[in-house]
Amino acid sequence: MTQIDINRLGKQAKEAKYELSKLSTEQKNTALCQIAKDLLADTQQLLHANEKDLENAKKNGMNPGMIDRLRLTEERIQAIAQGILKIVELQDPIGEIIESKTLENGLQIEKRRVPLGVIGIIYESRPNVTADAFGLCFKTGNAVILKGGSDAIYSNIAITESIRNSLGKCGITKDAIQIIQATDRAVTEEFMKCKEYVDVLIPRGGAGLIRSVVEKSEIPVIETGTGNCHIYIDEFADPAKAVPIIVNAKTQRIGVCNACESLVVHEKCIGTILPMVAAALKEKNVELRGDEEVCACIDNCVLAESQDYGKEYLDLIISIKTVKSIEEAITHINQYSTGHSEAIITENKQNAEKFLNEIDSACVYVNASTRFTDGFEFGMGAEIGISTQKLHARGPMGLKELTTYKYAITGDGQIRN
Amino acid sequence: MTQIDINRLGKQAKEAKYELSKLSTEQKNTALCQIAKDLLADTQQLLHANEKDLENAKKNGMNPGMIDRLRLTEERIQAIAQGILKIVELQDPIGEIIESKTLENGLQIEKRRVPLGVIGIIYESRPNVTADAFGLCFKTGNAVILKGGSDAIYSNIAITESIRNSLGKCGITKDAIQIIQATDRAVTEEFMKCKEYVDVLIPRGGAGLIRSVVEKSEIPVIETGTGNCHIYIDEFADPAKAVPIIVNAKTQRIGVCNACESLVVHEKCIGTILPMVAAALKEKNVELRGDEEVCACIDNCVLAESQDYGKEYLDLIISIKTVKSIEEAITHINQYSTGHSEAIITENKQNAEKFLNEIDSACVYVNASTRFTDGFEFGMGAEIGISTQKLHARGPMGLKELTTYKYAITGDGQIRN
Repeated sequence: MTQIDINRLGKQAKEAKYELSKLSTEQKNTALCQIAKDLLADTQQLLHANEKDLENAKKNGMNPGMIDRLRLTEERIQAIAQGILKIVELQDPIGEIIESKTLENGLQIEKRRVPLGVIGIIYESRPNVTADAFGLCFKTGNAVILKGGSDAIYSNIAITESIRNSLGKCGITKDAIQIIQATDRAVTEEFMKCKEYVDVLIPRGGAGLIRSVVEKSEIPVIETGTGNCHIYIDEFADPAKAVPIIVNAKTQRIGVCNACESLVVHEKCIGTILPMVAAALKEKNVELRGDEEVCACIDNCVLAESQDYGKEYLDLIISIKTVKSIEEAITHINQYSTGHSEAIITENKQNAEKFLNEIDSACVYVNASTRFTDGFEFGMGAEIGISTQKLHARGPMGLKELTTYKYAITGDGQIRN
Repeated sequence: MTQIDINRLGKQAKEAKYELSKLSTEQKNTALCQIAKDLLADTQQLLHANEKDLENAKKNGMNPGMIDRLRLTEERIQAIAQGILKIVELQDPIGEIIESKTLENGLQIEKRRVPLGVIGIIYESRPNVTADAFGLCFKTGNAVILKGGSDAIYSNIAITESIRNSLGKCGITKDAIQIIQATDRAVTEEFMKCKEYVDVLIPRGGAGLIRSVVEKSEIPVIETGTGNCHIYIDEFADPAKAVPIIVNAKTQRIGVCNACESLVVHEKCIGTILPMVAAALKEKNVELRGDEEVCACIDNCVLAESQDYGKEYLDLIISIKTVKSIEEAITHINQYSTGHSEAIITENKQNAEKFLNEIDSACVYVNASTRFTDGFEFGMGAEIGISTQKLHARGPMGLKELTTYKYAITGDGQIRN
């Protein structure tokens, strides 16, 4: 696929966005229902396409965990269709009047919520993201250009084709969703320079993918999802809260960005609460990597290297750092965190408020698991990703975060003095 | 200045931001008053430093208009101090609770407004931007690193030193403002990669500067200020509004981003309203560059080349394009606009609403001059720039646009199922 092709997709998406921004909520919901119905009807085609991806994956020696993520089944296709139907129920943010005022000179200013326009999404492996990301972008009147991982290319194309056909049936431009059907990196790099047509780029995937997009993109990027999340056991922590929260945050699901990767422990708790936490984590087969103070107190603890504190393990491993004060804890966390989610376990209100104020992350918790950082848990009803940057949106991004605003100003001949 | 030095500034700014985010509104206002007072007291030092810049400018053959922009006088220093005092009066957005709710599981979620952190500003020529940009960033609890144009380097350093001394007097970290005292491009490029320490980069200046920052920065950028602004004379336009609005938008100040650069005219108005507009513009010495239809109707009109429609002249020149319908006008404008400000002149409500909805720009006007796109005119009290991108902020950016939010979540032991 050459640069000219990418520009063609871009041009088509730009044309589509004007049409999509005008659709009523009812038109969008009707189309989403049709799409969900047709995805189910197309189950055999989708499974057939997915089979090709699975064969390639086996040929390439992909590990069984990854192959499982890649696999579509009838149940998973039903879940994808269900996901689309859930988006129907969500409130459409487009058209909201955010602010409205009349200036002294009589100019009426309205700040109106509008779609971002064309959203590019670069993602890895799981094919359900194709339908999911489209659904959220479409409900907010955006056109989307998808660049999925090469592993899932046949599945992604099949899902996209099914959706495009449904859109056609509803009399809506098929270019509401387009997929880049190439797998080489040069094309992805061309895509990231397609500033003329793409308004925003959202990478979804591992740290390597996200770093590469941030470095190379000329399109504004929303950085998502790397989470080196910390939990700080304060000197005033209640062990009855500390143990279950830490076990939950570390082990309830290990491969996710809101899982806990590092403990920071007040030195007064090294001999008291930490042994209880360590025992509970070891029961769940978690490897502990601590500094010297920790290793002196806890059996079978590996001595941490300094780079351990910067690692998002996504595995049954946790790093542990001793500090002398809450100030040192905050400094350590602000140095190593990726700005995602951090928690303090404390019964001291002042320390809790200090932590909430001074930790520079999207989501800061007192006495709760970091695993709650999630659009569904936060009551947004859906999530396109979790922003770890500060521009535009921070933390879980739902429908509203896929919109921007414009000023509509009405006068009757006003000129500036 | 080497990469190590840039990193040192970054590290200092990052430390400063934690201190600044904790300042009360009163502490910030007291410091701003001190700064305004000290800038006046330092008038002679500032004029002396400015003299060096002016000498260099003359040596380098800078044109008189640019030299005037560079010049400081006692009056201009008073205006700079007044500008700082005006920021004192503005409401501090930091600490606002944007949303607050309690989930079914008892978790309390607060969405709190917080500073962005460290803001980098890359700007050209006028030294007043140094104090102005600092004042807005400081009032919102942000640390700022400035990289001004080499033309104004001595003036910028002198203003920065004055402000740093005032901060010191108030017991506030001087690193709330730092300036990059180097003028070579390599340093600017290092700065744009300083992602570890700088949260947001705002370029202020000409189209070339902004394009270069967008292409090279790894830090999230807010694009500002290039304005190829259009006014569309609809077939239902009232000439009594069209003529004064267009003359105002084109000629009231020509070197600014919200000036009108291009007229789009419904073919029915070519022989009716356009001649009146053309006569009024010619009286103000504006050169007209139109398509063939326009040239056939208007005397002394230069035939426009296709690239004329994409030009931000910032000069006494205007391009004129004929269209057959409002749809064609909207398509033309959305193709050539920089997403800044566009206006329609019409008495037809349906066309007005269509234009407001379908033009993809930050500010869209009905029957008013594009010159109103301005933070002060919009009642924000101040302006750091006008965003022409869609992420984070669109249109004039005041204090609120220099903030982000964080989620503060308080529980009593909640874990995720």
